[in-house]
Amino acid sequence: MYYYKYEEFVDDVEILYTSAKVFEPDIILAVARGGVTLGHFLAERFKIRALYTLNSIHYDDTKKLDTVEVFNIPNLPANKKVLIVDDIVDSGESLEEIIKILKQKFPKTTFKTGVLFYKKDAIFTPDFKVKEAHDWIEFFWTIS
Amino acid sequence: MYYYKYEEFVDDVEILYTSAKVFEPDIILAVARGGVTLGHFLAERFKIRALYTLNSIHYDDTKKLDTVEVFNIPNLPANKKVLIVDDIVDSGESLEEIIKILKQKFPKTTFKTGVLFYKKDAIFTPDFKVKEAHDWIEFFWTIS
Repeated sequence: MYYYKYEEFVDDVEILYTSAKVFEPDIILAVARGGVTLGHFLAERFKIRALYTLNSIHYDDTKKLDTVEVFNIPNLPANKKVLIVDDIVDSGESLEEIIKILKQKFPKTTFKTGVLFYKKDAIFTPDFKVKEAHDWIEFFWTIS
Repeated sequence: MYYYKYEEFVDDVEILYTSAKVFEPDIILAVARGGVTLGHFLAERFKIRALYTLNSIHYDDTKKLDTVEVFNIPNLPANKKVLIVDDIVDSGESLEEIIKILKQKFPKTTFKTGVLFYKKDAIFTPDFKVKEAHDWIEFFWTIS
């Protein structure tokens, strides 16, 4: 288990901001719950008022294929650039499903993805990422 | 100017959690942007997956009365308890408008409000609050 401290997060937000700056996002869309604190910090860093969230729940079902439920999708304007953020790309199934749904629903909106941690064997590769996850990560926002 | 540090926030989340526990919320609804990191921490503390957000923009217009725009309101189920959270009750106009709209839209849902800071002369008194704001507060999530 790796404990991810607040101080490390502050540095990583700066790294993610610096790399995602080229995209010049209009909207930060955070995946709840895990991506929400990151979304808040990035929206402040980008000075973007449009901080939105959506909810995603990944059901692991041994009998069927995994299913990802995506809900509370905000209305996204056409011809805008949306940076979708999450804490970690684990299997990659959640973000892959989220981006598929968003692109179908908003074909004229541009999407990129940014995360703190990624796994090398994930099926989805985010556009912007900070570091590889080798261990189970305990994030500082799970303080209890 | 008062700088609100992460360490102080962690203590205040615990205080807010302890006082809001009696409400037994089913959903945490954070007001973006300011209430979003708080919402994330409280959702984790309450072990609530249903962390939702809405957006609120307070327009200060010297010619007309102040207006508050509320959008990206999630669909809230009836007979559930929703804890609305924000960083600070300043004038109180935003939270007053938010709760008015939500009660109209979801008459069978129960709402309570929780904030970190409140001002004594605000027109809205939250149900759960941690401390009084005497100064302009610089929150740690505005790191830039």
